[in-house]
Amino acid sequence: MIDLWTIIEDSFEPKKQHHKETIFTIGNGYLCTRGAFEEGYPDDHRATFIHGVFDAAPIVFTELANAPDWLPITVYLNSERFSLDTGTIESFQRTLDLRTGLLKREVRWRSPSGTTATLTFERFASLADEHLLYIRCRVTPEFAGTVEFRAGLNGNMHNEGLVHFQWQGQGKQDDVIYLHNRTRKSGIEIGTAMQITNVVGREVIREDWDVQNAPTRMVRVEAVPGQTVGIDKRVAVFTSREFYSADVVTVAVHRAREAASWESALEVSKQAWAEEWDRTDVIIEGDNEAQIAIRFNLFQMLIAAPRHDDRVNIGAKTLSGFGYRGHAFWDTEIFMLPLFIYTAPHIAKNLLNYRYRNLPGARRKAQANGFEGAQFPWESADTGDEVTPTWVPHFAEPTKLVRIWTGDIEIHISADIAHAAYQYWQATGDDDWFIELGAELILDTAKFWASRAEWNAEKDRYEYNDVIGPDEYHEHVDNNAYTNRMAQWNLQTALEVLEWLKKHAPKKAKALMKQLDLNQKRLETWGEVIEKIYLHIAPNGLIEQFEGYYQRKDIDLATLEPRTKSAQEIFGIEGCNETQILKQPDVLMLLYVLRNDYLGEIVQVNYDYYMPRIDHTYGSSLGPSIMAIMACEVGKPDDAYEHFIRAVRADLRDVRGNAGDGIHAASAGGTWQSVVFGFGGLRVTSDGWTAKPRLPKHWKRLSFKFFHHGKMQEVDIKGK
Amino acid sequence: MIDLWTIIEDSFEPKKQHHKETIFTIGNGYLCTRGAFEEGYPDDHRATFIHGVFDAAPIVFTELANAPDWLPITVYLNSERFSLDTGTIESFQRTLDLRTGLLKREVRWRSPSGTTATLTFERFASLADEHLLYIRCRVTPEFAGTVEFRAGLNGNMHNEGLVHFQWQGQGKQDDVIYLHNRTRKSGIEIGTAMQITNVVGREVIREDWDVQNAPTRMVRVEAVPGQTVGIDKRVAVFTSREFYSADVVTVAVHRAREAASWESALEVSKQAWAEEWDRTDVIIEGDNEAQIAIRFNLFQMLIAAPRHDDRVNIGAKTLSGFGYRGHAFWDTEIFMLPLFIYTAPHIAKNLLNYRYRNLPGARRKAQANGFEGAQFPWESADTGDEVTPTWVPHFAEPTKLVRIWTGDIEIHISADIAHAAYQYWQATGDDDWFIELGAELILDTAKFWASRAEWNAEKDRYEYNDVIGPDEYHEHVDNNAYTNRMAQWNLQTALEVLEWLKKHAPKKAKALMKQLDLNQKRLETWGEVIEKIYLHIAPNGLIEQFEGYYQRKDIDLATLEPRTKSAQEIFGIEGCNETQILKQPDVLMLLYVLRNDYLGEIVQVNYDYYMPRIDHTYGSSLGPSIMAIMACEVGKPDDAYEHFIRAVRADLRDVRGNAGDGIHAASAGGTWQSVVFGFGGLRVTSDGWTAKPRLPKHWKRLSFKFFHHGKMQEVDIKGK
Repeated sequence: MIDLWTIIEDSFEPKKQHHKETIFTIGNGYLCTRGAFEEGYPDDHRATFIHGVFDAAPIVFTELANAPDWLPITVYLNSERFSLDTGTIESFQRTLDLRTGLLKREVRWRSPSGTTATLTFERFASLADEHLLYIRCRVTPEFAGTVEFRAGLNGNMHNEGLVHFQWQGQGKQDDVIYLHNRTRKSGIEIGTAMQITNVVGREVIREDWDVQNAPTRMVRVEAVPGQTVGIDKRVAVFTSREFYSADVVTVAVHRAREAASWESALEVSKQAWAEEWDRTDVIIEGDNEAQIAIRFNLFQMLIAAPRHDDRVNIGAKTLSGFGYRGHAFWDTEIFMLPLFIYTAPHIAKNLLNYRYRNLPGARRKAQANGFEGAQFPWESADTGDEVTPTWVPHFAEPTKLVRIWTGDIEIHISADIAHAAYQYWQATGDDDWFIELGAELILDTAKFWASRAEWNAEKDRYEYNDVIGPDEYHEHVDNNAYTNRMAQWNLQTALEVLEWLKKHAPKKAKALMKQLDLNQKRLETWGEVIEKIYLHIAPNGLIEQFEGYYQRKDIDLATLEPRTKSAQEIFGIEGCNETQILKQPDVLMLLYVLRNDYLGEIVQVNYDYYMPRIDHTYGSSLGPSIMAIMACEVGKPDDAYEHFIRAVRADLRDVRGNAGDGIHAASAGGTWQSVVFGFGGLRVTSDGWTAKPRLPKHWKRLSFKFFHHGKMQEVDIKGK
Repeated sequence: MIDLWTIIEDSFEPKKQHHKETIFTIGNGYLCTRGAFEEGYPDDHRATFIHGVFDAAPIVFTELANAPDWLPITVYLNSERFSLDTGTIESFQRTLDLRTGLLKREVRWRSPSGTTATLTFERFASLADEHLLYIRCRVTPEFAGTVEFRAGLNGNMHNEGLVHFQWQGQGKQDDVIYLHNRTRKSGIEIGTAMQITNVVGREVIREDWDVQNAPTRMVRVEAVPGQTVGIDKRVAVFTSREFYSADVVTVAVHRAREAASWESALEVSKQAWAEEWDRTDVIIEGDNEAQIAIRFNLFQMLIAAPRHDDRVNIGAKTLSGFGYRGHAFWDTEIFMLPLFIYTAPHIAKNLLNYRYRNLPGARRKAQANGFEGAQFPWESADTGDEVTPTWVPHFAEPTKLVRIWTGDIEIHISADIAHAAYQYWQATGDDDWFIELGAELILDTAKFWASRAEWNAEKDRYEYNDVIGPDEYHEHVDNNAYTNRMAQWNLQTALEVLEWLKKHAPKKAKALMKQLDLNQKRLETWGEVIEKIYLHIAPNGLIEQFEGYYQRKDIDLATLEPRTKSAQEIFGIEGCNETQILKQPDVLMLLYVLRNDYLGEIVQVNYDYYMPRIDHTYGSSLGPSIMAIMACEVGKPDDAYEHFIRAVRADLRDVRGNAGDGIHAASAGGTWQSVVFGFGGLRVTSDGWTAKPRLPKHWKRLSFKFFHHGKMQEVDIKGK
């Protein structure tokens, strides 16, 4: 029987090491660690990212700092260092048990001089206690002599060359070895403490190598052929983000010392995982690849989701790689949040609170640009200020710079966040949260939209000019449909929310009206913008993506096949801008996000027009999961499947060649929406919910759960 | 009696640590190591820079990579770590013996728990074998127990956060511990090998801590009150720049193993130093500060000067700090080279060969800009391509960028290099070198100048427009006097050189004429440019710095006093551009460089006009030494002294507050010129030389040596 819970790698291919490091990332919502080897490998991109631990970096402003490495265990067989770049790999298997988060590697290796052993490494990050990390190393020698283990902590880490941590101190308390570091610019303290336990084998010698920034315990045991030896390593990690006193070392040492054994800790972590999966799992029968792939995508969401911290968000590459530096985009609200809203509302609340807490940053941004209210940053990190790089070096000509405009003009994110807050409220019925925090998100973004609207007297309409819509192949466009309609939605919803507040929380309504200066005149302006915002919809329902889109060159994408490049690489940024080719399905995104507002015919006509114009293979990784849903909406579940499978494979098969930079988080979050809102046909309204399944032909069953107003719902669909 | 050879620091001030790290830099022309402590100190900027070991860096293209650290020795007194940021410093003295290059630190220190000892650290980089480095550590305990020494090599270095070296391997051969690294982008291999010898005291325990990238030998000895214990550490360093086979480790291990004892090695290094000083020393009597300071400046030149490598140059901050990334500027040719031309022609030849070897880069630059011949880069590193940053982040507003124009339009450097080649030839009479290499430098830069000249038909003249002259307060100026006159000189000299070659090396002349396409028409054009280049000289001899300079706002600098900022900081880049205030004495530089062409009256009138308009205190550090010479030229040696003393103090007293970034190399090189050409009044012509001394009143004697056509000359001037 096939194991539908396990990602398996049966041979080690050095060229794929960065891709596989991403795939075999483990974590617990506090931190994630890439699947690099304990003993290292040349040019590995080993990294542990802890939520919120940002530090300044040139060009990109700030990035998640690669934390001190807790993985190091090097093994010496009769004094020969075990390393997969030397000797002979007789057998290799790596497995990630998605059900429990346990990563295991088993290697039979012959050293250059012929010494042979089977080595297994297992590791997990406890989901029950997010500060605890475990590794078990076992060696079964086929020789007599010694096996030496060197287990350490290493503060000499960097982000692709950039060092973020300074050494502060290290030492030993009882049997716990600790290391103390601090980020160079942001001054975040981190304490890492390690204990080596459960030494299996007859110990020959033990030394503690107290080398600065890399304290190491060396344990050498006797090797007898066929007799397994080994050590367990457990590590505790704390930062000053959790404990504002700087005494992170004491806490870490205490936690490492008191930590349970491997077996007990694994057991409680497994229980925590079982609870997560009970809420989150999606069952697909009749399609093993889809089954395991959807679980992989959900796993990646679960390990990146902050459970006990509402001052952090999930970056576009989760905590699994250096890509996008840990910055959060609209990817969270539009692609990831629905999963959490419906399966883990406590996590969704943390993520929304992050936006609430960062309203000051959004207000600074609006003000700096001459607007009112809250303009959320396109890229967001620790302070909520805009951290989109303004300029980046040209990849081919380093004396030239490329101006990045998204931070200036991709403004739809403010409406996306408002929409997410509203969706959370509608799905959970969490009035308390909405009154205290959520409503302000919607009202203050509305205030921004009204101030950002441009009155065109000649045409008697409001406009949003010089923007970037979701489709980033087209920059500096006027009246992008997604942006304009979402702004309108944001303003409409704000007015409704204000009415609702006046009725259900009059004191809060009054306070907010005062705080945000929501006077009568302002609200009238909102009404005018709502009424007169420009939206180009043809009589048949076709929506023009932006003003003048139809005048762009209409290129038949099929004529470019076969290709291995995106349309942007083929035509150049400027050239692509002149065509109708899309990176993201802009109008279809709109119809999806506001799906309760649009009828089937409108969906059909826009689907027919835009689908052939999308760069499906090399455009944005955000597209496929949404296109799968839209294909379902027009009654084409088997076409939908093609998009869906592209989405779930995004990282597992590295279809874009950049999975080594980290998980495509929006794609991963989107796959759940494909299944639930696409194939499952779930529609949630203020009245309740309906499911209108449309499964791909070969699916025999689709089952998932979700919360509606605090109650677990279950959908179990049998295929034909 | 005062020791006029020693830089002394009598107390440790943490706030000055980066400044003092620069001051106490040691080296041997192959590498330099900043004066950081062996045991480390929080936020130290410890660094070793090896000539030519560049690696890619963002924005600045490439920089000297901070090499694996050979300094680490941490000392534990009864298990308490010695560190100056803890416990009590009972006494402290650091001395740098300029005569021998020996750096010594003696500290009496009481640990937090009260354990007291006197520790001395001595180090030197052998001048006799530039791959060898030595440290001696001695501890005299005032307690009983143990003293532990941890001596290591550390590859975890970085350049202010940017990592350049990747670990390749490490190990032990016999008793030598080695470390193998490679630069991340440029792929330069480095082998570092360490031997611990001469353990003084009864050894209790010894362990080798083979921690990755920081191999460490721990030796613990018995402590008896009053009995000195210690170790010697010697380190050998080789890179693949010297040995193109990658086996740098074997060479380093061998050298470390075979290296002489501390005493013998120090002895031969002292002999090498004695020979250097015999040629280089300047004796000033009647002014102890000037005496010791000029020696300090000469020392800094001597430790940075490549003796066995003609593929490297001296950066604007020598090898002593991160400033300017190891890039070389005109600072070398105009400010440093005269010292070497006259006291160490073999070094001058190495530096000029670097330019010759990099002619292909200069030709690439000319071609890329649409010119002919050789246009040397404003900033030069390993390949001779332009490495001036094009844009740098604004220091206060990181979303903004500042465009750096010097790499585009500060073009005078090509003539400066030609002039240096000519000066070397004139001073040394090294016809062989000039025929084979030097002439080509002059001819190909002339070719550039002719192609870069712009014909102004209306005014019947050639112009060089949109340039930056030596005075960098004025960007994008037309017809800068220094640039235009130096271009003219370059063209004139090229024609003379060609005639000379035809007579003395006709085959080479023919070959060069073919290679550089020096046809009759081209040479006629050179003649036209020489004749018709625009130079604005008033009837009284006053030279306008650039066209329209006199129309700029004339601000009385005295009205800005007292100030602690440069004029540029006060008025801003644009604002300063609108004034007549100068960062560098542009016209005076010209009169100095071409001093054999200008008469006293011209000097006087320009001196009178420009001197009051120079930002003496916060302008360029390049200015003071040249102004000292010009003051001597107009018969004001005591005014000259004011500029001279500012120049020699530049680093010792950190007068600009940035000595922590490294030695002001141009200033250091310029001080020798102040003494020799200024106070000494030396003039060298093709016929011979004359000295016309004009000493400051309080100087009792000035004595120096120099080579003229291979023969050592001595000037010994007695003051009044």
